Amino acid sequence: MTTPTDIIVQPLMVAAFAEFGDVIELGDVPTVMINRGNCARFSDLATLSFVEDGRCGISLFQAKPYAMPHTLDLLERHPLGSQAFIPMHTQPFLVIVAPDDKGIPGQAVAFATNGRQAVNYHRNTWHGVLTPVGTEGLFAVVDRIGGQGNNLQEHNIASPFRIVDSDQLLA
Amino acid sequence: MTTPTDIIVQPLMVAAFAEFGDVIELGDVPTVMINRGNCARFSDLATLSFVEDGRCGISLFQAKPYAMPHTLDLLERHPLGSQAFIPMHTQPFLVIVAPDDKGIPGQAVAFATNGRQAVNYHRNTWHGVLTPVGTEGLFAVVDRIGGQGNNLQEHNIASPFRIVDSDQLLA
Repeated sequence: MTTPTDIIVQPLMVAAFAEFGDVIELGDVPTVMINRGNCARFSDLATLSFVEDGRCGISLFQAKPYAMPHTLDLLERHPLGSQAFIPMHTQPFLVIVAPDDKGIPGQAVAFATNGRQAVNYHRNTWHGVLTPVGTEGLFAVVDRIGGQGNNLQEHNIASPFRIVDSDQLLA
Repeated sequence: MTTPTDIIVQPLMVAAFAEFGDVIELGDVPTVMINRGNCARFSDLATLSFVEDGRCGISLFQAKPYAMPHTLDLLERHPLGSQAFIPMHTQPFLVIVAPDDKGIPGQAVAFATNGRQAVNYHRNTWHGVLTPVGTEGLFAVVDRIGGQGNNLQEHNIASPFRIVDSDQLLA
């Protein structure tokens, strides 16, 4: 048995994440100020897509915490819908994505949120399962509800990777 | 000038809120366990409705904190779309709603979330503006993007109410 190849966690940034999905975070300039100037609105920050008669819905995910380093042996994707994860707390969480390589995941990349970011995986993008670190995670999830067809494709990774938080971004 | 009538904040509960919208919170039994048993999914917790060519979108609201007691002199509603507020922190926030009474708001009601709840206002339901208390609030908002028509109706309250947190639910 060989040692898993390490993947180092990096801070979640818009540019590096763009091919996989949307970083839902505050920008520099609000779309509009509302409520007599008391609230800054940043509008329409995620590309939502729900096909085959699916519709947009809001669900909650209550996820057990994972420990670091994290063994990555599974990736999944949803061919019929985008999926957004909105943390209902300020604890950073681990975000793992991979490009597609002829129907299976290519080289995975790992990011840590900064505690004020949500993410939206574009439809059919390979990603790791929801991975809060250290403490239980409560997330609102905006994804596809109802409709026809199989919306889950899983890929087991024969030689697991080890996700390492060298810079303590998730501590 | 008369003293405003007081409205006492009550804990946000599904039954009392049902005529106004959805309390998005964990239930007793998950819809399904996913991710090898590590995550409980509670599916489809909000009635979303977007009309006149609008679509579902995710935005962020960054709102200044309000102090208690809170003077309520404005209610608003969105005739063309539901609006969900998902806190990205665990600080409880104030939720104010009112039934419709022949086109204007009836008697308002005030609730405090418990720090693990989001809310979805049903389409065309009178509600107060987003009111984090004590500390700035960061919320993901799922509401109507694009489309035709005027989606904002405001009502100024001639004799403002005073919202009082007698039980320190928002402290």
